[in-house]
Amino acid sequence: MPDAYEPTERTVPTRSKERAAYDHAMVHSILDEAYLCHLGFVRDGAPVVLPTLYARLGDRVYFHGSTGSRPLRMAGAADPGLAVCLTVTHVDGLVLARSAFHHSINYRSVMIHGTAYPVTDPEEKRTSLDVLVDAVVPGRSQDSRPANPRELAATAVLRLDLNEVSAKVRTGPPNDEPEDLELPYWTGVLPVVKSYGAPIPAPDLAPSVAIPEYLTGR
Amino acid sequence: MPDAYEPTERTVPTRSKERAAYDHAMVHSILDEAYLCHLGFVRDGAPVVLPTLYARLGDRVYFHGSTGSRPLRMAGAADPGLAVCLTVTHVDGLVLARSAFHHSINYRSVMIHGTAYPVTDPEEKRTSLDVLVDAVVPGRSQDSRPANPRELAATAVLRLDLNEVSAKVRTGPPNDEPEDLELPYWTGVLPVVKSYGAPIPAPDLAPSVAIPEYLTGR
Repeated sequence: MPDAYEPTERTVPTRSKERAAYDHAMVHSILDEAYLCHLGFVRDGAPVVLPTLYARLGDRVYFHGSTGSRPLRMAGAADPGLAVCLTVTHVDGLVLARSAFHHSINYRSVMIHGTAYPVTDPEEKRTSLDVLVDAVVPGRSQDSRPANPRELAATAVLRLDLNEVSAKVRTGPPNDEPEDLELPYWTGVLPVVKSYGAPIPAPDLAPSVAIPEYLTGR
Repeated sequence: MPDAYEPTERTVPTRSKERAAYDHAMVHSILDEAYLCHLGFVRDGAPVVLPTLYARLGDRVYFHGSTGSRPLRMAGAADPGLAVCLTVTHVDGLVLARSAFHHSINYRSVMIHGTAYPVTDPEEKRTSLDVLVDAVVPGRSQDSRPANPRELAATAVLRLDLNEVSAKVRTGPPNDEPEDLELPYWTGVLPVVKSYGAPIPAPDLAPSVAIPEYLTGR
């Protein structure tokens, strides 16, 4: 199958298999629309799930943190590499069925399994930091002061290749049981909408600095 | 400390300790405002992070799924109980500093460590299913058909006690370096707003069924 990730034992869901997708276009669009992921790793045998920022560049995602943070220290430790599961979820709507049982949400999620490695190449590190800023606010990396050597040294970036990847998507109306169709309950979807409020200038911002176009357009 | 969760080695962050909070009021308000969590567990030694619905009732959270789903099967297996980390995150704003390094997001998150157990008491199971529906749409459990015995049997509910719990919160403007304050870049916070669109009736909804008040008020 061209332009799709190869399904593996752990990327084929046990339930709702029809919701799974592996094509690059779907996976990338879900990843590119978000900037916050939930990163899972194992520490002392127990699971840990950290919310963290990420960005995709090609067939790789990057995330970062202080060199003192736990997952980044663990990834850089003796045997390099940290087994992770990186999950991104968009909630698109609340699905109200006539039966409590068939309530659901419309969502698009991506799950990436793999090993995260520290980015050691200085060029890749700089690029990934730009991409991480631009994932949150497109265009912003070119309109802020780049990291200086001290800041670069204090920041660890991890990369995770997109190999073992799946998307899972639910869309559309509720699926009620045929015998419930006459029940007198309202049924349908309540769309969930994400938007931005008016930018709040920092208290110490000089009044002469205008709000940039990449913010007013959002 | 009354009305607060006791910090433990794994609920005290290695970084940004000033952002950590343990009081019940803060933790509960973050949990109660959301309905989607990211649930981490360990499978064959590797981390897995699943997006799933949850609800809080008192000092316990519930989540559920098909009895055939992986984590629910694992939790019910021979040695009952599944070690989990359940994380909930609200993104409140994008924090644009003058330096790329100090970019951040304003967020509120809760992380629960513990062991999830299947809910076996029929009364607790029914109540938890109501709470799970009402976490997504308050009031809905009383305005839909309750689960029948077949559906109850097909649904597994897990409970996780709130013992080892922490919140982490960032608010306010960017924190720029003193030497950056004169740089000509706009700086401040772009609020992230979550709202609902107009309800979309299911194609098979009878026109006589009005949109309920608990939806129009959102």
